[in-house]
Formats: sequence, structure tokens, C-alpha cells
Amino acid sequence: MQTGSSHGEIDLNSVTFLSPVTEEIKLVEERMRSQADENHPDLRAALEHLLAAGGKRVRPTLSSLVGNMLGAPLEKLINLGAAVEMLHTATLVHDDLIDGSLLRRGTPTLNARWSPPATVLTGDFLFARAAKLAADTDYLPLMKLFSDTLAIIVNGELTQMFTSRGLINRDNYYKRIYAKTASLFEMTSRAAAMVSPVSDETIEAMRDFGYQIGMAFQIVDDILDFTGDQNTVGKPLGSDLLNGLVTLPAIYYAEANPADADVQSLPNGGWTNTENMNRLVTSIRNSDASKLAMREAEQHIERALAHLEDMPASAERDALENLAKYIVDRKI
Amino acid sequence: MQTGSSHGEIDLNSVTFLSPVTEEIKLVEERMRSQADENHPDLRAALEHLLAAGGKRVRPTLSSLVGNMLGAPLEKLINLGAAVEMLHTATLVHDDLIDGSLLRRGTPTLNARWSPPATVLTGDFLFARAAKLAADTDYLPLMKLFSDTLAIIVNGELTQMFTSRGLINRDNYYKRIYAKTASLFEMTSRAAAMVSPVSDETIEAMRDFGYQIGMAFQIVDDILDFTGDQNTVGKPLGSDLLNGLVTLPAIYYAEANPADADVQSLPNGGWTNTENMNRLVTSIRNSDASKLAMREAEQHIERALAHLEDMPASAERDALENLAKYIVDRKI
Repeated sequence: MQTGSSHGEIDLNSVTFLSPVTEEIKLVEERMRSQADENHPDLRAALEHLLAAGGKRVRPTLSSLVGNMLGAPLEKLINLGAAVEMLHTATLVHDDLIDGSLLRRGTPTLNARWSPPATVLTGDFLFARAAKLAADTDYLPLMKLFSDTLAIIVNGELTQMFTSRGLINRDNYYKRIYAKTASLFEMTSRAAAMVSPVSDETIEAMRDFGYQIGMAFQIVDDILDFTGDQNTVGKPLGSDLLNGLVTLPAIYYAEANPADADVQSLPNGGWTNTENMNRLVTSIRNSDASKLAMREAEQHIERALAHLEDMPASAERDALENLAKYIVDRKI
Repeated sequence: MQTGSSHGEIDLNSVTFLSPVTEEIKLVEERMRSQADENHPDLRAALEHLLAAGGKRVRPTLSSLVGNMLGAPLEKLINLGAAVEMLHTATLVHDDLIDGSLLRRGTPTLNARWSPPATVLTGDFLFARAAKLAADTDYLPLMKLFSDTLAIIVNGELTQMFTSRGLINRDNYYKRIYAKTASLFEMTSRAAAMVSPVSDETIEAMRDFGYQIGMAFQIVDDILDFTGDQNTVGKPLGSDLLNGLVTLPAIYYAEANPADADVQSLPNGGWTNTENMNRLVTSIRNSDASKLAMREAEQHIERALAHLEDMPASAERDALENLAKYIVDRKI
């Protein structure tokens, strides 16, 4: 298994991980869209706007692929996929408001067009509908998992908010990306297995599959913040550092260059100095820090792929393999 | 049944509706408090602050009284009571942020002490834990009812936000107070019956019991905005009107005095003129509008009490009767 050397081999335009469930994802989107029926027209418009802004629907794709591979009923997968994507959307709505972001995926955020109060409430509405969709799977353990995961995500955001900026700490970093990203991937994959007729071992394997690709997903996101095409990523290079967020490439660089003055300044508010941080970003880009961080992401993907070997051979298994590889190969 | 004439007969200091479940409410509070264990210390402190700010725990009291009267298991009632109060608290946290309120029940609001982002996220965390507590009742229909009710509450707030201020409309008013208040009382009473070994008829009777006392509760709140002791209520007299919210006393007055210039100004932004609104508040106070509105609240209570006649004679039934009467007799 050489996910490292597979870099760039996948044609991103073909988005191969989608194919076996393209039709199912449309049903998921319809299910999401219907959640604002019978509600205020402005709320329906907001949901429409959020859905049109899109995204790749990676999470519903994950749940449908795992569920189809393992024989889950279609109806449960549609509710699960819609619940997961709705929960994800709800957290983005509140995040964008909190960060004051005006664009996401090139589309105006809700808070760019609406007042903060309307944005807070729309996020709340999406949480409510996500919970309803999760309950509609008619499976209580999934409901508990769902609410626990939401608590993990929100606690992670609060912890990040309360933690001093500029902190260089691996343990803190891993906990943060678990809460921020991996917990929802883990839940999605695990939940899809939970509603399938499979053993506890398979559920545990699929939980870890989701965990591993989720960790890889966020690490790659953090690498792209240093190495990505600024136009494609849509934010300035090194924006995390400029916000005092020390991610894995910066941690690798700091470990290798403890005497670097910019590194030493970080925990003492040095991240507020844009000039110094731009210099640090260049230093990190010129080092092998991103390569080392990518190696970690690839190790997560390797662990994820190992779980697939025990799964039934199927188009879905192949697509999950592509999905996992896509996560480290993507450019955006 | 003469709830009208019972005005002031209940000694508010004895708060008689609490007695049969005082110990159980302590367990509910402990269950709520434990929801932030293992989370960030600042989040634990926030929950502690919110719980200490208190309130009368009317909703958990309602669920415990109904559940105990009908033979529900204690453990389910504790989870249900904690879920309902946590959901209520979450909506208050976001409401206070949206309204910019700095005090609630004489205690600083969370947003008075924390940043808006931390307040948004704390509300989200409380939603997550409320959903978890609801799931812990191990009863799926309750989970669906719970998420539906949250959607009704939030849709109601959004609708209020998007509706033109100064609107004098009964239908709009009843829908608004159902979403804002009665829906949660209805859910609480219905859910407590749902987890009890009773017939569908009893569940329906208890649903309507909750609906009726919830409608009465909000009507009385709206009356107190005109007639209450300003110091006790904690906001200026007529604060609803000054915010462009036309409640039942104002609707009665407007119906009886369609030619009143202040009434006529309302839909055209007249509510922004403080001097005129203070004059209108005085006109309403000097009219029988509040008495007529109170008569409506009392009719709701009468309908609620009628349901109790078919319930098993018990200390809880007596306490529910007192709780219903207290709602129209309270001064705060």
C-alpha cells in the first residue's frame, strides 16, 4: 500500500468516490431540503441557500457507501446521511458567524446576508432538524451517539476558544482535530454500520475507518493552509498561524527548529505580528514539515484501508478505498 | 370551578405545587449539573452559573407530577425533566444573546459576562446535552417529539423576527405564544404521560393539559408586562409594546378602541415612539383589556383542570391543580 506515491494519480474531476451512490445522495439532499417545509419562507430560503452552496457531501457519501456495503436499509441511510450533513451544516453556520466569515466555498455565508440573531436561530433550527432526522432512523443508540458527537464538537470549539493562542502542543492538536472533524467522520461511519446487519467487530472496524479518514482529512486541511493554491483554498496562506492556531506542519517545524525566533515568539503573542508570521509561513513552506505532516495523514489512511480488506468485495468497498485516498490527494 | 375568583388565594411563598416532587427536582438538577462533567472547566462554570440563576423549574415539576401520578419510572422522569429544563435553558441563552439582555431573574446573563461566540457555543452545547438526556429516556417517540418541539420553538422565534412589528393580529399572537411557550409545556406533559403505563386517551388528555397551562402561562406573562410590579417583573412596563410586540391586552384594547390614534399608529412604526407608547400603555392599564385577557387565561386553566378530573386521585393530582391555578395567580 503506497498511498504516499499515489499522489496526484486520481483524476479529481471524475470524483470517483461518488459514483455508486450518486442517486442516493440526491435523495439525501431532497430529504434535507424538505426539513424546512411548513416553516417560514425566509427559513426555507436560507436552507435552500445553504444546500445550493453545496460542498462535496463527503459525509453522506461515507454513510451511504458503508451502509450499502454492509446491507443497511436505504431509508435509514437517507435519514442518517441527511442528519449528518444537516448537523455539519448547522455547525458551519454558527462557526461562520463566530469567525465573521463572509464566504464559504465561494458563496456568501448566511451571516454575510442575515443578521447575527437570524443566523443563530437558523443554526438552531438546523440542529433541531438534524436531531429529528437522526431520530427518524428509529434506532436509539444512534440518537445517543449523535447527541454525544455534537457535544464533543461544541466542547472542542469552546476549548479551542478558551485555550491560549500560539500554543505548540501535539496532544492539544490531536484532541482539537478529533473534536473538530474526526469525531463526525467516526460517528458517520460507525452509525452506518450500526444500522446494518453486522457484528460488533465490523461496527468497531468501521468506527475506526471513519476516525482514521477524519483525522487524515483535517491534517490535510491544515497542510493545505500552508501549501495550497491560495485561490483554490480561498483564504490567505498560513491563515491558521495568523489566528494563533498551531497546526501539525507548524508543530513539526517548531520541533525541528526550537531556536527559531518566530517559533519562540508564538506562545507569547508572536502570532499577532503579521510580518513575522508571514516569514514563519515561508520557513515552514521551505522545510519538510508539510511532508512529515502528510506522512502522518497517509498513515491514518493506511490504517483505514487495512479495515477495508476484511469487508465484502463490492463497488462500495472500492469507492471507500478511493474516498480514503482522495482525502490525502485532494488539492482543496 | 372558579379559577377567576381564586385570585390571590394561593400563598405564593408556600409554592404549594412543588411539594410532592421537591426531592425529585433536586435529582433533576444534579442530572443537569453532571452534563458538563469531563468538559472544559469554563463550560462547567457556565452551566453552574445558569443552574444557580435558577428559576422555579416549573417544567420539570410538571413532568414529575404528571409522571408520578401516572406511574412512570423515576429514572425516565429524571432524564425527561433534565432534558426539558436543559432545552429551555439553551433557548434562553440564545434568546438573551439575541436580545442583548444583561439580566435574567436578577442574575447576569451569560452574554453579559461572555463573548457572543462563547455564548452561541454554550447554547449549542446545552442543546446537545438536552438531546442526549432525551435519548437517555430510551424512548424513540419522545426523541422525535423533542426535536419537533425544538424546531417549533425556533421557527416561532424566526417567524417573530421576520414578521413586521406593530402587527395587531390575534391569529399571529396565538401562534406565537404556542411556539414560544405552550409547545414546550405541551411536550413536557405529553412526554411524561408517554413514558407512563397509560392509554392513548390519557396521553392526549395530558398533552392538552400541558397545552392549556402553557397558553395561560404566556398570556399571564403578557398581562404582567402591563400590570406587574415593575421591580418584580424586572423590565419597564409595556416593554413588549416598546419592542413592537402586540400582545393580548393590547389586542383587546385595539379591538375596543379602533379609532385611538396610538393604536392606529402601531402597524406603521408608531411603536418606535416611546412617548406615544407610554400613553398607550396607560390607556391599556386604565381599560378592562387586561381583565379580558386574564379571562382567556382562566378559560385555558379551566380546560386544563377538567382533564385532571379523570386522573387518579393523588397528591400529584392536587399539586397539578395548584400548579395550574398558580399560573394565573402568580405576580411574577
